[in-house]
Amino acid sequence: MAPVIDTVVNLCKRRGLVYQAGEIYGGSRSAWDYGPLGVELKENIKRQWWRHMVTSRADVVGVDTSIIQPRQVWVSSGHVKVFTDPLVESLHTHKRYRADHLLEAYEEKHGHPPVNGMADINDPETGQPGNWTDTKAFSGLLKTYLGPVDDEEGLHYLRPETAQGIFVNFKNVMTSARIKPPFGIANIGKSFRNEITPGNFIFRTREFEQMEMEFFVKPGEDEDWHQKWIDDRYQWYINLGIRPENLRLFEHPQEKLSHYSKRTVDVEYAYNFAGTKWGELEGIANRTDYDLRVHSEGSGEDLSYFDQESGERWIPFVIEPAAGLGRAMMAFLVDAYTEDEAPNSKGGVDKRVVLKLDYRLAPVKVAVLPLSKKEPLSEMARKISNELRSLWNIDFDTSGAIGRRYRRQDEIGTPFCVTVDFDTIEDGAVTVRERDTMAQERVKLVDLQDYLAIRLVGC
Amino acid sequence: MAPVIDTVVNLCKRRGLVYQAGEIYGGSRSAWDYGPLGVELKENIKRQWWRHMVTSRADVVGVDTSIIQPRQVWVSSGHVKVFTDPLVESLHTHKRYRADHLLEAYEEKHGHPPVNGMADINDPETGQPGNWTDTKAFSGLLKTYLGPVDDEEGLHYLRPETAQGIFVNFKNVMTSARIKPPFGIANIGKSFRNEITPGNFIFRTREFEQMEMEFFVKPGEDEDWHQKWIDDRYQWYINLGIRPENLRLFEHPQEKLSHYSKRTVDVEYAYNFAGTKWGELEGIANRTDYDLRVHSEGSGEDLSYFDQESGERWIPFVIEPAAGLGRAMMAFLVDAYTEDEAPNSKGGVDKRVVLKLDYRLAPVKVAVLPLSKKEPLSEMARKISNELRSLWNIDFDTSGAIGRRYRRQDEIGTPFCVTVDFDTIEDGAVTVRERDTMAQERVKLVDLQDYLAIRLVGC
Repeated sequence: MAPVIDTVVNLCKRRGLVYQAGEIYGGSRSAWDYGPLGVELKENIKRQWWRHMVTSRADVVGVDTSIIQPRQVWVSSGHVKVFTDPLVESLHTHKRYRADHLLEAYEEKHGHPPVNGMADINDPETGQPGNWTDTKAFSGLLKTYLGPVDDEEGLHYLRPETAQGIFVNFKNVMTSARIKPPFGIANIGKSFRNEITPGNFIFRTREFEQMEMEFFVKPGEDEDWHQKWIDDRYQWYINLGIRPENLRLFEHPQEKLSHYSKRTVDVEYAYNFAGTKWGELEGIANRTDYDLRVHSEGSGEDLSYFDQESGERWIPFVIEPAAGLGRAMMAFLVDAYTEDEAPNSKGGVDKRVVLKLDYRLAPVKVAVLPLSKKEPLSEMARKISNELRSLWNIDFDTSGAIGRRYRRQDEIGTPFCVTVDFDTIEDGAVTVRERDTMAQERVKLVDLQDYLAIRLVGC
Repeated sequence: MAPVIDTVVNLCKRRGLVYQAGEIYGGSRSAWDYGPLGVELKENIKRQWWRHMVTSRADVVGVDTSIIQPRQVWVSSGHVKVFTDPLVESLHTHKRYRADHLLEAYEEKHGHPPVNGMADINDPETGQPGNWTDTKAFSGLLKTYLGPVDDEEGLHYLRPETAQGIFVNFKNVMTSARIKPPFGIANIGKSFRNEITPGNFIFRTREFEQMEMEFFVKPGEDEDWHQKWIDDRYQWYINLGIRPENLRLFEHPQEKLSHYSKRTVDVEYAYNFAGTKWGELEGIANRTDYDLRVHSEGSGEDLSYFDQESGERWIPFVIEPAAGLGRAMMAFLVDAYTEDEAPNSKGGVDKRVVLKLDYRLAPVKVAVLPLSKKEPLSEMARKISNELRSLWNIDFDTSGAIGRRYRRQDEIGTPFCVTVDFDTIEDGAVTVRERDTMAQERVKLVDLQDYLAIRLVGC
């Protein structure tokens, strides 16, 4: 199958899902703006995650922590010291690259790592044998300065992950929510990383949105809980419509684990980027007691837990499912993108593009389409759309032939089209068309809301 | 009435609505973290705003734009040049203050501005006559650096408002959403301002969340639309339960208007801060064609609109209702805070604290309380709470006397308490207690979900 990624990127721009940030000023690869349909899709993904991870569970609560935390948080967590990427510069073009990315791409292409390290890597710009500087450590933290002077005192960082906001509030949350391990704290929000080479659309950006949950367990019970969360998170994507053949689990080799991790498993999606099939969708790590321990030491606050049942005091181990919202959105879009055929008015078939998104994710739930702009059809359709609008995100479209309007809705994944035609005046009924089957059903107006509510349950 | 603000701040900390960011490291006044109940309340406010402003309207669409835009956005908008605050330093204490805030506080206290300007202002720290430096302009923009070197090329700003992300996407949105003036674009997200003196809890912070909508209209129709939005926004707060006596409209004097504004009206709430009764909740500005004009000039992209009906080309005027999410949350909390009396088990009355939040805003919708921890009560109650959890945010509490558990729910504004008692085993019914009236009703378990759904409609 040819990569559909470029097609999806074009669709996103044309239909208003995603635009380049500041496009009229030349744009940026650091960040992207979400348009009217994109923001609805993105919010729907967040809502499903929050329901699944927080409100539907008795053992997980939510928080929303700040992007700018006291600097000491990042000193204790280790980010100031070790949150760096290996950077090389081409002596030919003076462009900078992530050394590890170049080495991985080589290995993916040749089936083995380069024998002579960077010396074997061609310059991506020229295609010629490369000439590289030594590898330097480059901080991934974005700085900012609070207060009237840009000095050491005012130096702060934009968070590179939402997780630390959870760890520093561990005790606050445990006390005020009257909850105890095993329990989790979830956090959704923007994070920032000074990526050397942002790219692949919304896959790798400097500003991005995370959905993270830290689950605190008794030491010794960590491995079982880790496996439970790996299974749960894999299944979440399947339940929201990702095809199993496009999803895999990737076990991080022991020698490549982050300094805090005992075991990490990624959920990967087959994005089919140029040169790379699989990309990380979500990482599920066993962070051990690393975070609570370093924050106990760094802050002087005791973040251990006294287990009244066993009479023991211990620092909880942490299982972390950490998902990228942009990456999830991109996977749902690529996976839902389908080209098939639809009957046309001449008795033949036309090609159609349809986003087979799970109904819960679809940005528009129902489109109301008067067959003609003539009254009373248009007015009736407008009234219907306004009534449904109190329940769902509704589109109202009067422009062009009905087949063309169906195509427009198929392309953005709208589950139901409601057509108001001249018979509606007589029989008080409308035609409801389902997106995937294109099956049409005549539904009485008095029954319309219930008809849709049953089919859009959980949206 | 004594200010309830300190009481509400304590309640927020104790019950896990709001914590100081990075409290275990000494905390920060720049930003606050939202706990399990705070994040639900905050999300409920956002959801109500989005429904009211976007999905329930045919003429407004949403976006979600980046915090880091190309730097040129802020050059064109005027922020790099004029987004400054007048800063003075006390020669006694070397602390820095906003000159305009000191002057306003003087005027509020004495009923007239200081005759000799800053020379009449006492030092807030010492209470003695002040000795001040000259007033200097101080940029409110927070800087950051993208890319490998902290140089001019990498210099970017964190957005001080979400509005500009809308203006630079005006054409993209108009085209892809197939919409035309009069129409609006809404945006919710974090913004950052380098406030000299953050304070008053979540009222003035350096990191904060905005809910902004830019409504694009034909020049000449701007004044009518402005008034419509002023009325609409005032009414929104009333409809969500703010008492009219605590809300007022403040008309900005002509000579104090921002450089882009033709008229600005604030919705103010009676926060009753120490020394200041009223605080800005939301500003509704007629921004004229200023923004689209400067971005047309700055980017070279034509952001005018060709009106096919009249055959004219014009740059739309913009009406902007811009609300602060933290400020709205604080107003809803202060306004809902009530102390009254509840009957106790000894036939007397106890004082109770109750947050009379609109049901739609309440962080927890239903609490399920088994009268005893004994089985089968506890298990039955757990089962009921798990069933309701698929629909609403549910609390399950087994600890302490029932009266005490009611108090705990009243204090966080939970609309309904469902009590499972020993009769439940026999009659398959539970007692449902309403928060404000404390009225209790016996409801069959089979009817429970419908009973609550009818009362929690729109939540």
